[in-house]
Amino acid sequence: MPASYAYLGPEGTFTEVALRTLPEAATRELLPYVSVQSALDAVRAGEAEAAFVPIENSVEGGITTTLDELVAGEPLMIYREVLLSITFALLVRPGTQLSDIKTVTAHPAAQPQVRNWLRANLPDAVWESAASNADGARLVQEGRYDAAFAGEFAAARYGLRALETGIHDAENAQTRFVLVGRPARPAAPTGADKTSVVLWQRDDHPGALRDLLGEFATRGINLMLLQSRPTGAGIGNYCFCIDAEGHISDRRVAEALMGLKRICLQVRFLGSYPRADIRPGQERTALPGTSDQEFLAASDWVARCQDGRFQ
Amino acid sequence: MPASYAYLGPEGTFTEVALRTLPEAATRELLPYVSVQSALDAVRAGEAEAAFVPIENSVEGGITTTLDELVAGEPLMIYREVLLSITFALLVRPGTQLSDIKTVTAHPAAQPQVRNWLRANLPDAVWESAASNADGARLVQEGRYDAAFAGEFAAARYGLRALETGIHDAENAQTRFVLVGRPARPAAPTGADKTSVVLWQRDDHPGALRDLLGEFATRGINLMLLQSRPTGAGIGNYCFCIDAEGHISDRRVAEALMGLKRICLQVRFLGSYPRADIRPGQERTALPGTSDQEFLAASDWVARCQDGRFQ
Amino acid sequence: MPASYAYLGPEGTFTEVALRTLPEAATRELLPYVSVQSALDAVRAGEAEAAFVPIENSVEGGITTTLDELVAGEPLMIYREVLLSITFALLVRPGTQLSDIKTVTAHPAAQPQVRNWLRANLPDAVWESAASNADGARLVQEGRYDAAFAGEFAAARYGLRALETGIHDAENAQTRFVLVGRPARPAAPTGADKTSVVLWQRDDHPGALRDLLGEFATRGINLMLLQSRPTGAGIGNYCFCIDAEGHISDRRVAEALMGLKRICLQVRFLGSYPRADIRPGQERTALPGTSDQEFLAASDWVARCQDGRFQ
Amino acid sequence: MPASYAYLGPEGTFTEVALRTLPEAATRELLPYVSVQSALDAVRAGEAEAAFVPIENSVEGGITTTLDELVAGEPLMIYREVLLSITFALLVRPGTQLSDIKTVTAHPAAQPQVRNWLRANLPDAVWESAASNADGARLVQEGRYDAAFAGEFAAARYGLRALETGIHDAENAQTRFVLVGRPARPAAPTGADKTSVVLWQRDDHPGALRDLLGEFATRGINLMLLQSRPTGAGIGNYCFCIDAEGHISDRRVAEALMGLKRICLQVRFLGSYPRADIRPGQERTALPGTSDQEFLAASDWVARCQDGRFQ
Repeated sequence: MPASYAYLGPEGTFTEVALRTLPEAATRELLPYVSVQSALDAVRAGEAEAAFVPIENSVEGGITTTLDELVAGEPLMIYREVLLSITFALLVRPGTQLSDIKTVTAHPAAQPQVRNWLRANLPDAVWESAASNADGARLVQEGRYDAAFAGEFAAARYGLRALETGIHDAENAQTRFVLVGRPARPAAPTGADKTSVVLWQRDDHPGALRDLLGEFATRGINLMLLQSRPTGAGIGNYCFCIDAEGHISDRRVAEALMGLKRICLQVRFLGSYPRADIRPGQERTALPGTSDQEFLAASDWVARCQDGRFQ
Repeated sequence: MPASYAYLGPEGTFTEVALRTLPEAATRELLPYVSVQSALDAVRAGEAEAAFVPIENSVEGGITTTLDELVAGEPLMIYREVLLSITFALLVRPGTQLSDIKTVTAHPAAQPQVRNWLRANLPDAVWESAASNADGARLVQEGRYDAAFAGEFAAARYGLRALETGIHDAENAQTRFVLVGRPARPAAPTGADKTSVVLWQRDDHPGALRDLLGEFATRGINLMLLQSRPTGAGIGNYCFCIDAEGHISDRRVAEALMGLKRICLQVRFLGSYPRADIRPGQERTALPGTSDQEFLAASDWVARCQDGRFQ
Repeated sequence: MPASYAYLGPEGTFTEVALRTLPEAATRELLPYVSVQSALDAVRAGEAEAAFVPIENSVEGGITTTLDELVAGEPLMIYREVLLSITFALLVRPGTQLSDIKTVTAHPAAQPQVRNWLRANLPDAVWESAASNADGARLVQEGRYDAAFAGEFAAARYGLRALETGIHDAENAQTRFVLVGRPARPAAPTGADKTSVVLWQRDDHPGALRDLLGEFATRGINLMLLQSRPTGAGIGNYCFCIDAEGHISDRRVAEALMGLKRICLQVRFLGSYPRADIRPGQERTALPGTSDQEFLAASDWVARCQDGRFQ
Repeated sequence: MPASYAYLGPEGTFTEVALRTLPEAATRELLPYVSVQSALDAVRAGEAEAAFVPIENSVEGGITTTLDELVAGEPLMIYREVLLSITFALLVRPGTQLSDIKTVTAHPAAQPQVRNWLRANLPDAVWESAASNADGARLVQEGRYDAAFAGEFAAARYGLRALETGIHDAENAQTRFVLVGRPARPAAPTGADKTSVVLWQRDDHPGALRDLLGEFATRGINLMLLQSRPTGAGIGNYCFCIDAEGHISDRRVAEALMGLKRICLQVRFLGSYPRADIRPGQERTALPGTSDQEFLAASDWVARCQDGRFQ
């Protein structure tokens, strides 16, 4: 197994920063790839041990490129997630003042986050899109633009200075990244985990989707993400990417997955892994009757009934 | 274990006739008891191997005396059920003509079944209640009444003649009887089985009972009986006697019982036993996703996911 | 309309006591009838304005005679309910001591309530059943038995003395009575009401009963009583007598009844009337989205959408 | 009201072709706009009567730009939908042979649909992206590229010839377009209609989304689209764009919308309009109890009960 992680490049973007928050990243070679697809294909081809890619952000929702790669093709699994708050710095060459700025650049995805700030502070600046935020910083270094919106961490790399930091139009702007590898045993449960699956409905009678969600609800399992993706079989044909709380080794999650397996046309298990938003001990109180202990007690009771032992 | 069956007496009633339809009854001593309670207590005390009592009829519904005995006290289990069509014969002493009949007798429970016939055929006859249909026949033999409504089989025992047979106001008049014993391993599944339970709700929020029934419904399990019985904790406090299709060794039934065990305050398993209304092979087609095979496949799939083996 | 109320007699029973707690009873002639059926038939025949009968008690559950009369035949409606705590007095002729008592009597329904007291205080007394508790008191007056269990109020009528009062094996022993009349406009809502219906299912697919209860649950309506009664169409064919919180003029109840009317084979409305167990202002907090105000706002919003007015 | 329709331009794209299938388009001025946002803003500003934009395709799913515009900002409503099968022609300058083609161009969205064809027929051709398919055709006309993938209809406009037609990797490749206007009375029901709404959940307890979908399911209403979109309140906060069968003037749809209005934090009605995939008379058989007639009968029955008239 090559000791390397592929990630959505180039270097110096939020993705790399997020990846470096993982302790295990320190011991791997980190390889930037030009696309989510190419990073994941590197894993499938055995060229990388895992790939680190964005999967959801608070502005765009589920990132469809990543979801569609996980939904189709050779199966992959998620082993870790990272949440990164996204705030921008305005990077300039040393000496540049705010009043000097006539042109700004960044990746188009940055625009919704800096639009209000621009309107208030640089109403006359001309915006030009860059291939990535890191690339925008490089173009400022080269003198092509006066300023770039990028992560503050990019300043050092490109010899720039942050005129302003913490720029973010939307509160709570975050991006969720996942570490994806070939299918293997999931990480051990921590007590605050998440399970990802893809579901294809068997048919579309009224209530089919409700019944499917009922497999989670009746076992007290919250959903964090429900994203429909087209199956390619024509308008109106969707599968569903779902993130649910809990770990596949939790009884309630295992039984919910069994129920889905029985009533769905197809289920793809995408992994169980530690939640990045809360720590063990911070999860919500389970609904009555949904703890592992209660599942085991109930299973034991049924076995006793089947055997005719004292109830 | 004493080789005897207790039953609700006296001799010569429908209960005895139903009991004798069981092959195993031929090899036991059959002991009549004066009440359901005394017959069941004989089993609890070890004086009888099993007791045979009526539990449901198409006119009265669930027979509350029997249900309440199964709900409370030392646990018992149902091992067999028998369905008997209930039609009455009009029994008279030899020589009596229809026009001679001035007085008729039978157990009060017979009245709803013969009322229309009486109105049409003996509108002026006076009705007197008897302690049992068999006792009514005895009183006719003794000359106390002119005629008795009873099972046709009672004629020979009391030296009477059936002036008319097949009397039944309601079509489909049937009584269901059960053979009850001390808790032990249920009878093996036959493919057309029934499972009986008693459920006590944990609380009574809106939808509590719906959720409870949902444990059956989401697994495609039909209910045959739902009878509420007071818990004794005051007006409005009920437990529920439920007969559901399937056997506790069926995966879908076992999982439904586990679910009930988790969400109910208390569950009492009353047994899984062959259905008397249909034979193996006649059961309805199971809903998609609820067969044993599908349960096993789903369980196996989850285990493979947990282990990281190929999905 | 005759200014009289029929009730289940004879005089001097708990039923009469409960009836007299209704203010309107003071202005009617109160006529005892020998059975629930005859009292209700008097209403159907126009001989009485209303009938007052027991419908549920905490020991027996729903009283099937009354339920079956309401389920079948010419429709009737419930206009009031009364809850009466049932405790017994031991009535004796003046001068009788506890140690003198060799025989006791009462209606058989009293037995579960006094059994423990008898065992503790009069273990050797012989029990004989009476046709009613009032009749038992009369038989003590006539010297046939030494003591009778009856309501304390019966002592005066029969020249007896209460040796002991407040006898009740089960805590919270109560009987619920209803005032039944011919169909008319229900009593005005008080804010703490109850609605009674009878439901016949259209079919018995798995989940049919759950869906039916879902019409209440999804609108946050609690159930107080769910009692199955046979339809007469054979074993396993039941209709359901349901008491639900709220008044038919409450939007959530009206919509639930509409839903039931659509999905059931048949629905019989048995009335909306003030609850006897709580007073207006004591009801539970309604679930979000189920108040009349929210129903009206939602209805108004849909009307605006249909008309193309500002949402 | 200006007699013009804005649409997502430029001219000569599938959007324009789809728009021209609407009879009413023949009597309006059709104005191309550079983006979905600018087309919809033209409607909001009163510069155009309506805007015609793509909303869903069988490869990408819901088109998020359009959905997000409908979810937020000043409310708009959908009045019509059009389905267009998407197949591509390979357009070249007259005289060009397949073997001459070294470079091809098209909008990036065309790529998934022509990739297989390219691999099989022009494995060595270099792909360059164009701003739109129409723009690609123009660049071929100008000699910048050898061939463009575009709708066959674009050939005439740009003086090109279709070397190959009907190119589509995915079967059933379709795009759905909608005609969007300011809020007004919806189009009259046709018997085969669709209703679009946006839902914001009140909270996220387990089962919240299931309950929300239950408002449709219990009334037998199928869903055609369920697409989550971020609310901007941080990772994991979604609203849901839903297309359901039926018209807001159908009783079952109106009642479902009322239910959603009551239990959701917010509901935005996006319109009821004729379905493009089926014609009146082709819709599925309604579930028992969900027809307008049954709703009216149930409503009438409740009104009679409320008034005390014969049931």
